[in-house]
Amino acid sequence: MKVAVIGTGLIGTSIALALREHGSTVWLADSDPATVRLAADLGAGEPMPARGTADVAVIAVPPAAVAATLAAAQARQLARCYTDVASVKQFPVGQAREQGCDLTCYVPGHPLAGREKHGPAAARADLFLGRTWALCPLPETKNQATETVTELVCLCGAVPVRIDPAGHDRWVALISHAPHLVAAAMAARLEEAPGEALDLAGQGLRDVTRVAAGDTSLWTQILSANAARVAEVLAAVAADLAEAARTLADGDDPEKGVAALLDRGRAGVARIPGKHGGAAREFAVVQVVIPDQPGELARLFQATGQAGVNIEDVRIEHSPGLPVGVAELSVRPAEAGLLLEALEAGGWPVRR
Amino acid sequence: MKVAVIGTGLIGTSIALALREHGSTVWLADSDPATVRLAADLGAGEPMPARGTADVAVIAVPPAAVAATLAAAQARQLARCYTDVASVKQFPVGQAREQGCDLTCYVPGHPLAGREKHGPAAARADLFLGRTWALCPLPETKNQATETVTELVCLCGAVPVRIDPAGHDRWVALISHAPHLVAAAMAARLEEAPGEALDLAGQGLRDVTRVAAGDTSLWTQILSANAARVAEVLAAVAADLAEAARTLADGDDPEKGVAALLDRGRAGVARIPGKHGGAAREFAVVQVVIPDQPGELARLFQATGQAGVNIEDVRIEHSPGLPVGVAELSVRPAEAGLLLEALEAGGWPVRR
Repeated sequence: MKVAVIGTGLIGTSIALALREHGSTVWLADSDPATVRLAADLGAGEPMPARGTADVAVIAVPPAAVAATLAAAQARQLARCYTDVASVKQFPVGQAREQGCDLTCYVPGHPLAGREKHGPAAARADLFLGRTWALCPLPETKNQATETVTELVCLCGAVPVRIDPAGHDRWVALISHAPHLVAAAMAARLEEAPGEALDLAGQGLRDVTRVAAGDTSLWTQILSANAARVAEVLAAVAADLAEAARTLADGDDPEKGVAALLDRGRAGVARIPGKHGGAAREFAVVQVVIPDQPGELARLFQATGQAGVNIEDVRIEHSPGLPVGVAELSVRPAEAGLLLEALEAGGWPVRR
Repeated sequence: MKVAVIGTGLIGTSIALALREHGSTVWLADSDPATVRLAADLGAGEPMPARGTADVAVIAVPPAAVAATLAAAQARQLARCYTDVASVKQFPVGQAREQGCDLTCYVPGHPLAGREKHGPAAARADLFLGRTWALCPLPETKNQATETVTELVCLCGAVPVRIDPAGHDRWVALISHAPHLVAAAMAARLEEAPGEALDLAGQGLRDVTRVAAGDTSLWTQILSANAARVAEVLAAVAADLAEAARTLADGDDPEKGVAALLDRGRAGVARIPGKHGGAAREFAVVQVVIPDQPGELARLFQATGQAGVNIEDVRIEHSPGLPVGVAELSVRPAEAGLLLEALEAGGWPVRR
């Protein structure tokens, strides 16, 4: 595949690196030539040639610049089809329509992957492995274009998910844009806290606030392009928090207000699919105590292989220096009994 | 050191494992005998003997149970001094005072470390490495007791920080308790979202909401024991979010309201000190692409075993429906080269 990447930031360069691993030819362009050089040095491809037509052009620029970049690329016939990676879809699609872009070869897209770092140096070929990548073909989009862009998404190791632009914007408000502002509002409370307080910070605080380190200007663009949807979610979160604050301040029975919110939160977290999609929650976990030494995992997985059980996920919990650890094997519930028997027969100390 | 651990959950068992690494004798007790057996199997110590006096007793039970557990332990003269690990300090200290506990040998404590998992299987000897561990000696507490408990904290690899119970509760409201409810309020929005929305979820949402998976009854205890402080922080977060929602809904200039909140969030995140933690956590990660079928993990771990390399942790990343996944093997950096060579020689597609 011959691919033109316009915008060699984190996402554009990561796509280029992923495609290069499959032997694709990748052309790189950016309004900042220094990032193109860095991306090329990292093995992401070569600077955009003056002529030539790519199979796909990936427009990896901020939302407000997508339509103009698409129009310019189409004017010079850069590629046979086009996609973008903006975190909102109705806004750039509307602009592209207004600017008279050719929508028959445009497949709006959005890889649900990122890092709090940005720029080509933070790029990773494996950024999209197993991640969802929304594709929003328009009524005008030809099948051929959608097929080519879907192929690109699969080459990056991502899972293409078809959704219309309105549905996309509605749901990313909930699962990405609102959480970003919630993290920012929590992190904002730390701005004037004394060092004594921050010295106590643990991993929980770091996780809750991590995304708030993102770029203000990019996120202001994203949030204002999806303002109404984001506002709806934020208003609901604010109301729940204000109510929890009132309950706690008034010394009301915490079992009513606060425990109910905590329970709703747990239920919400449990609905987020695991690595394996929705089924992950339904795996059975078998715990096996294992000596922490070379060869023991091989013995364990030989036993699971001989039992004919497919291990869906493994976690190994152990502390460096300790002679034993616990392997947590996730399997389909129907296979858990078989696995337990096989391991017990092999003398492994197991717990379901 | 001879230590009695009462409560063999995540924190109690992790303390026990850390102390065992230094050759301490550890006695284990819990209201659930099954967790004591699992903790003992993991090498955390031995079940509590009927008699004997420990140097320290660590009371690793939920906040509401601390004072009663302390009183009972002191009544049977279990140890020469006592500490606890509850996430709030004024409440259990107040109860211990009311119940007439001997405060001269009681050093209230709180290790700022944890995981979203619980129970002894999730315990790790290195859970406290480089983490802050608040110690709140009371006016009555004798120096000898404070010194002994400080020694225990250092044996666990943590950094003892002296702070009075009121200061502790004030700052953990900001850096731990309020973030927990903020995560819960965000996660609660997912409770009724359709699968189509959740399929789009990325790492950002998982991080923002992770802590909300915590135990409701434990967190209700913690939050109501620190209600006024937590309410103050939550009210401020709720006000910022409500204001951001209004700005977005009204279509106001986002550069004013929203960008300012994002900037304050960035400034807040930047104030969180970096991760401490020892070299033990800095493993090299080797990525191996594996076919998703029974027997492949066995083949892989046979190869790692034959190479004589000890795998410290494994993550398996794969997407439903995709024929391959990626196994991420964590190894000591010095062993990564050996592992890469061995796997490459065996024909495994590896990436460091």
